Amino acid sequence: MTPSDHDEAQQRVDARVVRTRNDVLRAALDLLIDEGRDAVTHQRLAQVAGYSRVTLYKHWPTRADILREAFGGLREAHHHTPTGDVRTDLIGELTTFRTVIEQRRIDRALAALAELAASHPELADVRGEVVTAGERVLRELLAPRLQGPELEAAILMLSGAILNAAMMHGRPPADDVIAAAVDIVLGCSTKA
Amino acid sequence: MTPSDHDEAQQRVDARVVRTRNDVLRAALDLLIDEGRDAVTHQRLAQVAGYSRVTLYKHWPTRADILREAFGGLREAHHHTPTGDVRTDLIGELTTFRTVIEQRRIDRALAALAELAASHPELADVRGEVVTAGERVLRELLAPRLQGPELEAAILMLSGAILNAAMMHGRPPADDVIAAAVDIVLGCSTKA
Repeated sequence: MTPSDHDEAQQRVDARVVRTRNDVLRAALDLLIDEGRDAVTHQRLAQVAGYSRVTLYKHWPTRADILREAFGGLREAHHHTPTGDVRTDLIGELTTFRTVIEQRRIDRALAALAELAASHPELADVRGEVVTAGERVLRELLAPRLQGPELEAAILMLSGAILNAAMMHGRPPADDVIAAAVDIVLGCSTKA
Repeated sequence: MTPSDHDEAQQRVDARVVRTRNDVLRAALDLLIDEGRDAVTHQRLAQVAGYSRVTLYKHWPTRADILREAFGGLREAHHHTPTGDVRTDLIGELTTFRTVIEQRRIDRALAALAELAASHPELADVRGEVVTAGERVLRELLAPRLQGPELEAAILMLSGAILNAAMMHGRPPADDVIAAAVDIVLGCSTKA
């Protein structure tokens, strides 16, 4: 093989490895969401993802390794595309968050991440990245209107209302509750 | 034994059983909070609570049985004692919630409850009771000022801000953020 042939072959191998890893991690996150994190074992994941247990153990020696990387998938947050009207955009962003929760049940993965991060400090960084990605659009929409503690409070309250409803009340908020939350925050920001 | 002697003896036995159960369930909740729910096994709990594994298996045949009853301890929510000034009382109630989270780390137990309730419907009732008890004072303080979706949004936002900060951001909110959250909600409620 010439060096270039070798590089190409290596690239194909690398691409296959990346594809395998992504397949398995996506399946792990789905399994976590559908059946709870106790279901995320090498054996069960090999079944649902269609790879051998040997392959899985090679990539992720422990269950904790699988979970840590699977949670990384939560960084790919879906967002509302801003229209320029802040009320519409805040409602749109919170509604998009609710839709993702309803369709993909990511609240379950977030609850598992919160629970595990409390006793596994190495997960705190992943959680931080997931939260930063999740709050990005809310922060962009509110930053021109609120500062300091008001800005932090508004972001914590708006995303917290959706999380609280989904995680603790067992159902994400209805349209009128989302609109009321946005109006409470904007009513005050326009007063200031 | 006369019937009355028998009753007394039975009452002593009952009282001892209740004490044993409460001891073990409190230890289970502490273990869950300190080491995560994977640590709540019959063996580990027998060690820390000082009862035999046989006793534990007799009361709670499965780990799920232990967890379900241990979460019930979260219903005993600490609350601020209202002074009559709504701003002071809302800040006091949220600060009390934050103190309980800081001192007892109940956010960890709530995250575990949220995660398990998603895949174990029998835990949804316990979660509902915990949430109702936890929100009682907030609801009493806000109900005279807000109605319908605004009331639900305000409760979800205020308790959600504390939960979101503790669970997802890894630290409960500072004093100025709690005050800002209350002012955002009250600013709007006094406008209406």
